[in-house]
Amino acid sequence: MQSNDPLKACIAQLKRFPGIGERSATRLVYWLLRQPPEVPAEIGAALSALPKTMTRCSSCGDVSALDPCAMCNDPRREPGILCVVERPQDVAAIEASGEFRGRYHVLGGAIAPLDGVGPDELNISSLLERVGLHQISEVLIATDPDVEGDATALYLSKLLKPLDVKVTRLAHGISVGTEIEYADRSSVARAISNRREL
Amino acid sequence: MQSNDPLKACIAQLKRFPGIGERSATRLVYWLLRQPPEVPAEIGAALSALPKTMTRCSSCGDVSALDPCAMCNDPRREPGILCVVERPQDVAAIEASGEFRGRYHVLGGAIAPLDGVGPDELNISSLLERVGLHQISEVLIATDPDVEGDATALYLSKLLKPLDVKVTRLAHGISVGTEIEYADRSSVARAISNRREL
Repeated sequence: MQSNDPLKACIAQLKRFPGIGERSATRLVYWLLRQPPEVPAEIGAALSALPKTMTRCSSCGDVSALDPCAMCNDPRREPGILCVVERPQDVAAIEASGEFRGRYHVLGGAIAPLDGVGPDELNISSLLERVGLHQISEVLIATDPDVEGDATALYLSKLLKPLDVKVTRLAHGISVGTEIEYADRSSVARAISNRREL
Repeated sequence: MQSNDPLKACIAQLKRFPGIGERSATRLVYWLLRQPPEVPAEIGAALSALPKTMTRCSSCGDVSALDPCAMCNDPRREPGILCVVERPQDVAAIEASGEFRGRYHVLGGAIAPLDGVGPDELNISSLLERVGLHQISEVLIATDPDVEGDATALYLSKLLKPLDVKVTRLAHGISVGTEIEYADRSSVARAISNRREL
């Protein structure tokens, strides 16, 4: 390694990723240098394009290339049931279980007063709007089984029940302390079929 | 996650990196989506710029933004001793020791007939040229202590000795800080055969 800028700049950029330190970043950059020039160009182009091509679905709040997203637009999905999740990647975890056929609503986090996240920071007013406007019969709350997720579920159930909608929550088939994003799919499936009414 | 192209394309691109699988790539992409748009743009730009800005030093074969590279051009480095390494990142490892003040020569690999790497695939003719043209008094061979590195060292020493140059190789033995009890058996074997008189 020599004291030239582009190499160090590239290592510094890769180090911004969570879980990638100086050693990993250096290893990746030297790997890139051994590849044909189109490899770093293609990887770089895909990363650069990400913020330009991805937006948020104005209906469900999920990240998507289209607005409304493909799932909100899919007539084969049950329109009467909404699954409320904290993060976009939780949608993928629930989809992978194959147990849920309704639509999603992405909150963008959970209520966490210590981190300065109150209900106003979350995608909650649009949830109430969806439930009021469309014929939603059930809202399945799939927040994480932790303090913030529990508080968010309780808060949402209090808001939703006056709207005459059945409010359920994922059953505790997911081991406490595991985030939904990382749960195995059969645990997620079990949690969906055993969901409890709040 | 929805079935939209840019997200999956970005995950697929990050999966090309060695040691980054589907899960890690997905995690990194969702992390990127939570960042301000300039973060993926800057990381992407640094990667895309890499093949355009980096070249190989025509003297030593190291990756560099300049040709000749900063180290080949540095008059403070001892001109009479060359350290021969397999890969550009080995230069960094030897520099970090602070023990070597000469210049480098990067082979671009080691002789590995089973992988189809013969002497012609390596940066060897330019090494012989450097030794012949400049007043090189010593070539320190720093190839890896494995079958390919050993074969390459032997091959180079046979080519270099007729040029009236001292050929040395990095000492191999028990690494500093390793207890003998836990040292691997081939390191112990090398340490015994290379024992020094006190």
